[in-house]
Amino acid sequence: MSDDNSPEVSNTPGQGSAPQRRRGIGRRGFLTGAGLAGAGLVVGAAAGGATGYVVGNDDTTDAGAATEPFYGDHQSGIVTPQQNSMVFAAFDVNDSVITSQLQTMLARWAAAASLLTVGKPVGPVETQPGSPPADTGEAFDLGPHRLTVTVGFGESLFDDRFGLADKKPAALAPLGQLAVDSSIDPTISGGDLCIQACSEDPQVAFHAVRNLARIGRGVVTLRWLQEGFGRASATSTSQVTPRNLMGFKDGTANIKAEDPDIADKWVWVGDESDQEWMKGGSYLVARKIRMHIEAWDSDDIVDQEAIFGRSKDSGAPLSGGSEFTALNFTKKGPDGKPLVERFSHVHLAHPDTNGGVQILRRGYNYTDGIDTRTGTLDAGLFFIAYQKNAHEQFVRIQNNLAQDRLNEYIAPISSSLFAVPPGLTAVGDWYGKTMFGYVA
Amino acid sequence: MSDDNSPEVSNTPGQGSAPQRRRGIGRRGFLTGAGLAGAGLVVGAAAGGATGYVVGNDDTTDAGAATEPFYGDHQSGIVTPQQNSMVFAAFDVNDSVITSQLQTMLARWAAAASLLTVGKPVGPVETQPGSPPADTGEAFDLGPHRLTVTVGFGESLFDDRFGLADKKPAALAPLGQLAVDSSIDPTISGGDLCIQACSEDPQVAFHAVRNLARIGRGVVTLRWLQEGFGRASATSTSQVTPRNLMGFKDGTANIKAEDPDIADKWVWVGDESDQEWMKGGSYLVARKIRMHIEAWDSDDIVDQEAIFGRSKDSGAPLSGGSEFTALNFTKKGPDGKPLVERFSHVHLAHPDTNGGVQILRRGYNYTDGIDTRTGTLDAGLFFIAYQKNAHEQFVRIQNNLAQDRLNEYIAPISSSLFAVPPGLTAVGDWYGKTMFGYVA
Repeated sequence: MSDDNSPEVSNTPGQGSAPQRRRGIGRRGFLTGAGLAGAGLVVGAAAGGATGYVVGNDDTTDAGAATEPFYGDHQSGIVTPQQNSMVFAAFDVNDSVITSQLQTMLARWAAAASLLTVGKPVGPVETQPGSPPADTGEAFDLGPHRLTVTVGFGESLFDDRFGLADKKPAALAPLGQLAVDSSIDPTISGGDLCIQACSEDPQVAFHAVRNLARIGRGVVTLRWLQEGFGRASATSTSQVTPRNLMGFKDGTANIKAEDPDIADKWVWVGDESDQEWMKGGSYLVARKIRMHIEAWDSDDIVDQEAIFGRSKDSGAPLSGGSEFTALNFTKKGPDGKPLVERFSHVHLAHPDTNGGVQILRRGYNYTDGIDTRTGTLDAGLFFIAYQKNAHEQFVRIQNNLAQDRLNEYIAPISSSLFAVPPGLTAVGDWYGKTMFGYVA
Repeated sequence: MSDDNSPEVSNTPGQGSAPQRRRGIGRRGFLTGAGLAGAGLVVGAAAGGATGYVVGNDDTTDAGAATEPFYGDHQSGIVTPQQNSMVFAAFDVNDSVITSQLQTMLARWAAAASLLTVGKPVGPVETQPGSPPADTGEAFDLGPHRLTVTVGFGESLFDDRFGLADKKPAALAPLGQLAVDSSIDPTISGGDLCIQACSEDPQVAFHAVRNLARIGRGVVTLRWLQEGFGRASATSTSQVTPRNLMGFKDGTANIKAEDPDIADKWVWVGDESDQEWMKGGSYLVARKIRMHIEAWDSDDIVDQEAIFGRSKDSGAPLSGGSEFTALNFTKKGPDGKPLVERFSHVHLAHPDTNGGVQILRRGYNYTDGIDTRTGTLDAGLFFIAYQKNAHEQFVRIQNNLAQDRLNEYIAPISSSLFAVPPGLTAVGDWYGKTMFGYVA
């Protein structure tokens, strides 16, 4: 264990374990990648520490150099104030992959993410002749721009392939088909694993997912991928509330999750969990919500505002005040009807009509070009929510929203649930380490 | 002409002209949009001047408030230092649209672009009851973030529909099928009109194209749309050379077009033009170039560098020196062969092997998610080049690049040529005004 200086080896699970030996993958084999398809790709560098190679012209602007924590009680990218760009990827584990290969890949993802999030490549761009570059290079001159990498596990991972059947949390049961889910496309839903990469720079987020996908080659295959932009949901008291592509402020009443008490109450899995390994983690719901933009754009302003329950320009409740004034659901207008309608989005989504339940939204706007059948824009919201228990939180609210008049203008086209394990404690920890039965 | 305060009317061509009267579109009809499908959408505001309505919480950060010129000899978005985000849209004019309707839309685009590029909505978000919002609102709190809107005309516009047959520049002849063009998809190529919107903020660029598309509803239909990110090509001596998704610096030898002599020589149409209206304009070539990323990523570093002719990390020529050292095509290595190979990208693209010809590249990286057939990333370069004459410049270089070894790893999947008219001179000017025979 000491014939080179690469602490990354300490991230390797099951070192010299029976399955690895059986397939002839010794330690040296792991380091050179010889035991994995995509051989030649090496994470031959310290996780978060000194690297054995020279890093290029780092982006030393304040914005480019800014980082988010990598190690800690929780993964970053959840209560982290939202960055401007997102790339979200889901993967399926390939047929015939054995447990130790999956574990090794998750360890390599951890090592790579620890480097990427401090703006370092996952390995040398200039390798020895005969090898491809270890890092693909497109972020070589860019700082991390607050990159976060957040990894989750889908329900399908907990079948009989990897010995995880008795590790599946009850809260990871499939969401099922909700009332509004008549248009869900299974090919862009679910997956064994997911990665959410967020950064202020889209090239940095793309680079992270691309290089993690590359590290996973032979072990996992991309199932679907979604890019997002904008800031569809403020996650911090210090951020201006961003707007969704319907033009409304989205997130005025979102959880301000930098308050640890609020995050503990709604976001982080705690002692209620049936699975010890998920404590400190969170459940991620991802739903791609197509907007019927042209229909929306021709709707009357009065109707648009009635549907949301807020003023379009200021975000103020129709019951009066300014953006952050509390909603008043009983205040009536001259016609005797509530100013904020019963079937308005803000009313149906409000904690008061959902037994006090809240979720942390962290979605992004998306556009996929045009719908060639109609020549209209194909765009909407890639909704992401984090919570302690999606069945008790997201599903409850979403069921209430089945009556939302907004449903006339939107259609969820994908739906996914992932268990996001807690943060990595230090160099040597990796995604799922305790889930697989190793000591953290 | 004086019964309201909307200077936008001065942008309206053919006011009260016969075709408009024939179809019952009077001036009032234009102002209220009643004569157009998508009625109710009004650009009821001053072009670049005072607006009749309140603008929301402007983004007053330095970065958000930064603007590029709108009026001038040339359209912005060409020699403008490249912004981080792009949305490029191509449109076809609908059947049965008459010339004055097209002219009116182009005038409304001009008025709207003059507002968008200074960070204003194209009209009120809060309209009167009974009308949809004039602006869709998603950029309401954002500054322009250096937004540029660049409009071009495709060859198909110059048929017999709009009386433009004798206005077609010879230089707008179709590019035809080039040597590498075996995979061009016509549904994502060409179009009667194009809009290139670039901004540091992707939501601002998207908002611009969306609202211009909305203004055009009933007159034009989206043909294709492409988003891009990153900075695939430096257009300024002050910008760090960005990297393409092959991880190489792209644009080291690009024209530094802020030098007006260089721009006059290579970019701006001059007295050589057979069409007076194109003087001060430029020709835009747009080519979507899919990269076979997985194949590239498994190629040896030595081969990758030989293909490009440069070092991957530093961008230095393989003939020695640092990034901006001149290429030396005769210098030989110990094996007696040129250090920069004859069929390397830098050699084949170099002015010395193209009769001195140059182009201004201004492309963006793109990703369209995954190729579901293979589970591999669908990504590449949305190549954009501006030049005085694409047949003499782009085509010449591209024909030389037919021998490029890089072609093993890339495939152009769309190809378009647009004539980009000169800049708008002042309020009252509009895209194509002189082309249609009006006095500027």
